[in-house]
Amino acid sequence: MILQGEVHGKTIPFKGEFMNIINIIEKKRDGKELSTEEINHFIEGLCNGSIFEYQASALLMAIFIRGLNSRETADLTVAMTKSGDCIDLSAIPGVKVDKHSTGGVGDKTTLVIGPIVAACGVPVAKMSGRGLGHTGGTIDKLESMEGFRTSLTREEFIDNVKEIGIAISGQTGDLAPADKILYALRDVTATVNSIPLIASSVMSKKLASGADRIMLDVKTGSGAFMKTLEDSIELAREMVSIGELTGKKTVAVVTDMDTPLGNCIGNALEVKEAIEVLKGKGPEDLRTVCFELASRMLELGGKGDIGTCRELVRNSIIDGSALKKFGELAARQGSVYEPWDEKAMRKAAVIDYVTAPFEGYISSMRSELVGKASMLLGAGRETKDGSLDHSAGIILHKKTGDYIKKGMIIAELHTSSRQLLSEAGKMLKEAYETSTAAPAARPLILAYADSDRVIRY
Amino acid sequence: MILQGEVHGKTIPFKGEFMNIINIIEKKRDGKELSTEEINHFIEGLCNGSIFEYQASALLMAIFIRGLNSRETADLTVAMTKSGDCIDLSAIPGVKVDKHSTGGVGDKTTLVIGPIVAACGVPVAKMSGRGLGHTGGTIDKLESMEGFRTSLTREEFIDNVKEIGIAISGQTGDLAPADKILYALRDVTATVNSIPLIASSVMSKKLASGADRIMLDVKTGSGAFMKTLEDSIELAREMVSIGELTGKKTVAVVTDMDTPLGNCIGNALEVKEAIEVLKGKGPEDLRTVCFELASRMLELGGKGDIGTCRELVRNSIIDGSALKKFGELAARQGSVYEPWDEKAMRKAAVIDYVTAPFEGYISSMRSELVGKASMLLGAGRETKDGSLDHSAGIILHKKTGDYIKKGMIIAELHTSSRQLLSEAGKMLKEAYETSTAAPAARPLILAYADSDRVIRY
Repeated sequence: MILQGEVHGKTIPFKGEFMNIINIIEKKRDGKELSTEEINHFIEGLCNGSIFEYQASALLMAIFIRGLNSRETADLTVAMTKSGDCIDLSAIPGVKVDKHSTGGVGDKTTLVIGPIVAACGVPVAKMSGRGLGHTGGTIDKLESMEGFRTSLTREEFIDNVKEIGIAISGQTGDLAPADKILYALRDVTATVNSIPLIASSVMSKKLASGADRIMLDVKTGSGAFMKTLEDSIELAREMVSIGELTGKKTVAVVTDMDTPLGNCIGNALEVKEAIEVLKGKGPEDLRTVCFELASRMLELGGKGDIGTCRELVRNSIIDGSALKKFGELAARQGSVYEPWDEKAMRKAAVIDYVTAPFEGYISSMRSELVGKASMLLGAGRETKDGSLDHSAGIILHKKTGDYIKKGMIIAELHTSSRQLLSEAGKMLKEAYETSTAAPAARPLILAYADSDRVIRY
Repeated sequence: MILQGEVHGKTIPFKGEFMNIINIIEKKRDGKELSTEEINHFIEGLCNGSIFEYQASALLMAIFIRGLNSRETADLTVAMTKSGDCIDLSAIPGVKVDKHSTGGVGDKTTLVIGPIVAACGVPVAKMSGRGLGHTGGTIDKLESMEGFRTSLTREEFIDNVKEIGIAISGQTGDLAPADKILYALRDVTATVNSIPLIASSVMSKKLASGADRIMLDVKTGSGAFMKTLEDSIELAREMVSIGELTGKKTVAVVTDMDTPLGNCIGNALEVKEAIEVLKGKGPEDLRTVCFELASRMLELGGKGDIGTCRELVRNSIIDGSALKKFGELAARQGSVYEPWDEKAMRKAAVIDYVTAPFEGYISSMRSELVGKASMLLGAGRETKDGSLDHSAGIILHKKTGDYIKKGMIIAELHTSSRQLLSEAGKMLKEAYETSTAAPAARPLILAYADSDRVIRY
């Protein structure tokens, strides 16, 4: 191994340049608070190459163990935001509200919420990402509609929002490049699961995205980053605090990810399920979560108190305006067919069924395994540059709380090749855990946080 | 900045290789104990390049904060020892005792102790290093004698010890290369001052050097790595424990480095002062420390109890056998003149005097500044590959405890150029601190540790 910069032979002449970062690492190592200038120095040096990645990873570990207070976390967020482009949405009239989910299995909420919120008059200028590993991404889901374009220019993006109230695009510009560098390092140095580091990573991109206000969906449970409700609430509070300290009003809703959301996992399957919800149908858990998140977005967008906003959401489904908005979005971004048209999306060549190897109540589901099984079938990519099969995925017939008998169908596997079925089916079976007694019902909406309060439901 | 291995784009395919080190970092991050296999995996991966330096520095920070227990520290030491060559001294009859100092200002003890111990019949096969920064190195000091060769072949080294009982050489072979990599990383990631990391670094090289037993001189105070007696004793115990766990009997003596040792700092000046001690003269503090360390080495070498060994040391000075041994060593390794010959060493072209700007008792000295002033005069190198002036240095006329009057000479500066005087003189003056009352006397020998006990004097 060659040390970058040949640090040993040249330690002392470099000391002048290194001095600052070494002192910064030392302070955090000893549990002291870093100043705004020190945090800026770190992020600037990281981006211009004067600070080496081995120094960054030492600091990340010190931060992981010693923590950051809310001021430091907000400073880190702002420094990462300033490391790249910031989108200017000022040309769009009204209060722009952004939405972000910390990610989970079967999370197609953006596809439902975006059209509802836009239909209710709050502009939706949403930049989304692609999926990686066991979690999907909104951009991949939208691309399962034939012709749908997700690479909009900055102008198209803004024009679409101005004209039809909604646009969903892949990232335009280089948002928070410092976060990309740090995230890559955290991934290989066991420093991912730190609340201040996760909070600043999420919020740095949100601040760069240019919205006026931010609503966060913090997932909690087996399929999420945060496994416990306590940690999820702490993460929610930290992100709300960053929003407050940086002048962007932010609220967070903590929602369940112990069980996959809805019954469909996989890109085209999820779009179909989202359309079902917009039609006033679809699975109850997905409806509940989507309607609550949409209501909070409308509240944040200034459409009235939460009761009024819930009513607006309900009406947008009943009167068909949300579904219509989804059609407008699809047409505007190039979809060849109406999204609810049979021809809009390809179907999987192979459909197989998984049957229950046991009898009893489904007591819990290992959501991460469901996501991995779906990825194996072709619905996800293992690497950032991998490809995927939009038609692949899983439809769950049975979920937590259901009673099943041996031989009963519990899920459908959709894929392009029979060869992929066996391992995915085995993995999916492993995701189910059973008991003889019915499990206690778990609420889907677990907490809400804004700058004034935290409510646990 | 480019991340080595492009970790982000390729995270998942690399996960298999990374898995192990990420789990290892995670364990230590969470304060858990690492197994022998995990520590070996880390050091092997570090050397073969499968573990990246940003991963090593994250682990070093986790170790710095969470610590290592004695078993882990010994395992780390052995793994680093095994990463390189190990010297085989079995051709030399008798119990070979190695000596190591943690480093300080004016530390020329090896030049005194080596000849004493060899004269008393314990073979001295000593590999030493060069100086860096404000601390000197034995090899540089020896090279101030015209013709003295410090690059011996392995065969010469062993033959010399067999024939005259002593050889002092620069490092032969590649000892503990993993330590070199880690040390370079620690230097730039604020992870130097960790007791288990210092202990394993020192001991990995000592184990590789092939001696049967090891005596450590742990310096404590302003001019040393370890500033407090508590930390110095802890470091001493940790190194003794490594020796015990690896089957090499090790003892440690904690000695003062609050004040420079002896009056001379600088290569030729220090050799002359060492010769004074071998002649039965020289400054009292240097005599005391050298005689104690030599006695402990003889005890470790099986020459009797500590009282007997102290007697042997005294006799070797009185009967001139230690001085004679120094002459044999110099001649054998190529010195052109007898070391006590006026012609043996060059004199500095410029000698200047520093006078006291104040009156009072010298209450303490900032030894590190004395070392830096000497380096500025040319006696030390700032970088590993820098050159130095063997004749340069400082002679202290006054040290801690002395009473001085304004205008009185407190030190001599030896250098090759008048231009260097002003800054070095200013720095040296800053090293002196005064008070109106005489400071309390501080013992020179502060503690002793072996595997059975710790004695504080």
